[in-house]
Amino acid sequence: MSEHSPVTTLAEDDCWQMLHDQEFGRLAFHLADEVHLVPINYAIDADRRIVFRTAEGSKLLGLTMNADVAFEIDEFTEEVARSVVVRGRARQLEGHEEDETELLPLRPWVNTAKFNVIVIEVDEITGRQFGLTRPWLHMRPPHEE
Amino acid sequence: MSEHSPVTTLAEDDCWQMLHDQEFGRLAFHLADEVHLVPINYAIDADRRIVFRTAEGSKLLGLTMNADVAFEIDEFTEEVARSVVVRGRARQLEGHEEDETELLPLRPWVNTAKFNVIVIEVDEITGRQFGLTRPWLHMRPPHEE
Repeated sequence: MSEHSPVTTLAEDDCWQMLHDQEFGRLAFHLADEVHLVPINYAIDADRRIVFRTAEGSKLLGLTMNADVAFEIDEFTEEVARSVVVRGRARQLEGHEEDETELLPLRPWVNTAKFNVIVIEVDEITGRQFGLTRPWLHMRPPHEE
Repeated sequence: MSEHSPVTTLAEDDCWQMLHDQEFGRLAFHLADEVHLVPINYAIDADRRIVFRTAEGSKLLGLTMNADVAFEIDEFTEEVARSVVVRGRARQLEGHEEDETELLPLRPWVNTAKFNVIVIEVDEITGRQFGLTRPWLHMRPPHEE
């Protein structure tokens, strides 16, 4: 990555690898006219869908009313940040489809007996890597970090 | 945090402290009927507004058309995750307001000469801490991690 192109595109395979490696992401969805953003614990199933559980009524309502969602994961070091954004459609699983998700490694962040299982069917996946610079450090006298 | 209440609310002061300590978050916004989610580098200014720079036309258009946004930062360890979600209104700064942001420690993730400076006026800030368990580990034989 040259100094003059701090943003590069990640290959789709690398995006999927990051989705498989991680388990914590952020979901954006509509609720009436508002946009909402919540952290979720997720897993990727055998059909490359993003699966998560929720016990929250409003969150679920938002997904039911507006299936269009965006989902993001990222990782970063001192030098680079990588972000993968998925666009897709969310729907609630029921019956045998729901049962099939029981062996996925999903952490139950909300401790209730009843969970709703939601899947996001992925329409689009894009990843970017950002080179991070700290220009304001040049404004300061040299120092030990 | 007891085993029976894995989700706790963070104090507002702790939420602000996390916002000051970090510099990398995710912004959700409307663009026409779609919800979008992008990683941003941000800083908090003296008026407790979230400030970031963007060179992206579509991102900016989304903010101009629909000022309602959500913004999230988080941190996590093996045991807990903490997430702070801000709801607010975004607008572009111009003139002397824009000039005043020049000394904020914002990393230029997009290497172009022209930046637009956006601020989010915070209407609501909420933080939650999640206790993380890994129930599927109980399904496996004991092993060294």
